[in-house]
Amino acid sequence: MTSAPKANAVVGQSGGPTGVINASLAGVIEEVCKHNEIENLYGAVHAVDGIVNGNFVDLKNISIQDLEGIASCPSAALGSSRSKPDKEFCAKIFDVFKERNVRYFFYIGGNDSANTAHIVNVMAAEVGYEMRAFHIPKTIDNDLLVTDHCPGYGTAAKFVACAVMGDDLDNRALPGVKIDVIMGRHAGYLTAATALGKQRDDDGPHLIYMPERGVSMEQFAGDIDKVYKKLGRCVVAVSEGITDTDGTPWTKKVISTEEKDAHGNIQLSGTGALADFLSSQVKTKLKIKRVRADTFGYLQRSFVGFQSKVDVDEARACGREAVKLSMNEQSGSVIINRTGEGENYASELGCTELRNVAEFAKEMPKEYINKDGNGVTDAFVKYAMPLTGGLPKTYYLGNYPKV
Amino acid sequence: MTSAPKANAVVGQSGGPTGVINASLAGVIEEVCKHNEIENLYGAVHAVDGIVNGNFVDLKNISIQDLEGIASCPSAALGSSRSKPDKEFCAKIFDVFKERNVRYFFYIGGNDSANTAHIVNVMAAEVGYEMRAFHIPKTIDNDLLVTDHCPGYGTAAKFVACAVMGDDLDNRALPGVKIDVIMGRHAGYLTAATALGKQRDDDGPHLIYMPERGVSMEQFAGDIDKVYKKLGRCVVAVSEGITDTDGTPWTKKVISTEEKDAHGNIQLSGTGALADFLSSQVKTKLKIKRVRADTFGYLQRSFVGFQSKVDVDEARACGREAVKLSMNEQSGSVIINRTGEGENYASELGCTELRNVAEFAKEMPKEYINKDGNGVTDAFVKYAMPLTGGLPKTYYLGNYPKV
Repeated sequence: MTSAPKANAVVGQSGGPTGVINASLAGVIEEVCKHNEIENLYGAVHAVDGIVNGNFVDLKNISIQDLEGIASCPSAALGSSRSKPDKEFCAKIFDVFKERNVRYFFYIGGNDSANTAHIVNVMAAEVGYEMRAFHIPKTIDNDLLVTDHCPGYGTAAKFVACAVMGDDLDNRALPGVKIDVIMGRHAGYLTAATALGKQRDDDGPHLIYMPERGVSMEQFAGDIDKVYKKLGRCVVAVSEGITDTDGTPWTKKVISTEEKDAHGNIQLSGTGALADFLSSQVKTKLKIKRVRADTFGYLQRSFVGFQSKVDVDEARACGREAVKLSMNEQSGSVIINRTGEGENYASELGCTELRNVAEFAKEMPKEYINKDGNGVTDAFVKYAMPLTGGLPKTYYLGNYPKV
Repeated sequence: MTSAPKANAVVGQSGGPTGVINASLAGVIEEVCKHNEIENLYGAVHAVDGIVNGNFVDLKNISIQDLEGIASCPSAALGSSRSKPDKEFCAKIFDVFKERNVRYFFYIGGNDSANTAHIVNVMAAEVGYEMRAFHIPKTIDNDLLVTDHCPGYGTAAKFVACAVMGDDLDNRALPGVKIDVIMGRHAGYLTAATALGKQRDDDGPHLIYMPERGVSMEQFAGDIDKVYKKLGRCVVAVSEGITDTDGTPWTKKVISTEEKDAHGNIQLSGTGALADFLSSQVKTKLKIKRVRADTFGYLQRSFVGFQSKVDVDEARACGREAVKLSMNEQSGSVIINRTGEGENYASELGCTELRNVAEFAKEMPKEYINKDGNGVTDAFVKYAMPLTGGLPKTYYLGNYPKV
């Protein structure tokens, strides 16, 4: 390994925004400022699109106010992109890198972004261009391999937990069936997090459906019927990626026009069609009058002023770590290792090869989903709760002594 | 006026929950505990339904922990109801009141609830039953007459402002058209509040449509087209109660099966149909590929851990005020009068006759809506901003110097 080259760095943010992807960016910026090896830090506006178009902003002279400001703000402060670079795209990236003497590449994103960093890194090696490429994990889906969890998940988990806590209190006040559709194409982690706010035996969500376990409409309606008959109400959390028992996504049955992004993903968010379909199915099959459905949508990833402290601190540390690693290593993806549980929750950072994270996604382990496939286990709650940074307590008076 | 009778009191919470209706309940409870005239305080479980069914809980012995706990919690801690008492219903209420020597009635709710209190009060007078009936205002719609604003509005306004601030940052990161459907059947106050987070000229929401001003699909699409061509993106806030220029609600054109509640109101919330309809109209008419739509739904009224401090303090004061008034007055609705503006915002409480608040709803004044009917004025921002208790600042880096 040669010593760290004196050259410029590029940082970008890719994929769907999160509540703390800017904290990771702040971590990269503040750490870069400590290393004279990195002369300039170019922020790629709209990720790889910005790189090939030469659309960069100067980040080394950022003010402390802006640095702390973006660290507290959701979304991607540099702009994001859903482009997936192919060989031709990567050739253009190199042209720009060579032209600007860029030899450090920090890319914040999900598995697609790790893959982009990986491809770019391999191409750099092939043409003998000395470069250091590091992926900094971010996703609200928590579906990256190797790492214990992903920055972005804790904040989104806190949001959906608080949303469903409130929704459950609302449903106690005006009983009926309430269905909440939560983000998560293949991984049920975020939908599962709706369970974290449960504080009493009869608190909702009473049923939770995740993409890892297919469910038929018969089971879905039957489960709701059982809860409704017992409690007179039912709050249900459903992942947008939920499938039938044969593996077909329910959205596929509902949405006729499938809009796909450059990665071949079907559009699940930004539409209420699945929620409305489920609602009408329950009304029809169970003859329950008050059935409501909400799709939480983009609020889950971009709500202002509601970060998890644990999450934001870890996200920022991951950004710093990538830069530190680049001084001694050639490439990699930053990972979080858990070193303490429960109230003693603690973590430390590590590194894994880019190809270990690229492309493939992690599903929830079997032991986090209950036997019936309609709820989570205590093991999941133990895993996810610390990442929210703690949740408020809820109160109601319906259980007070009657007079 | 005779002196305050030594008797029992009933308190209830009616209509759609809010983020601070429990703070008003806490205010009633803590003030009742100071007045020996009130022997017992019965909490009606599920409002008037609880009264006629004799479903009460004892609230005078509530613990401080529970009192402060419910004050910090959204939804209606006693349970709510959408029943609208007729004469027969009211006769049953009196039977219960007489049987339990209830001569104080505190009812927290919107204009329908003020009407309920009014009807009950008139019937009490007719049969010569000495009773004191007070309405405590609550609604996220901010549509009650006489009062400057309603407890519940400030917290909901803070929520939608922060939601759209985040959504606008998200839309900067991944540009396209984003449509957000906000609660508000007849009054546009909550939809208008999405403007409160705007901090830069090109911040969204770029367009805001409120029920007070009809808009044609042609204008709607034309407005979006103009913004999109200028900024390459567009964030739109639309009230669920939006109408066409002939006054027909758009939901009527979209939703075939109209579910109505006991007050004859059509179900607007708990469905994503309007948002999806608007999204597909924009896609079709403007040939823009990335169009997304979210319906904020019940999160607006029931999110946990996100109260406006101004709102929660006023809501609690309104609850206390109703009890204080009942010591010297026969009936009324608590109102808030504004006594200071901007950073010197201040308010004091007053009282108006029940019939002044009952039944009818307040629309936004003309001077709060812009000339084109697609945005709000500075006068509205000046009016609404203090009620949120202040909003976070947002940051992004796309406007940094290019290198």
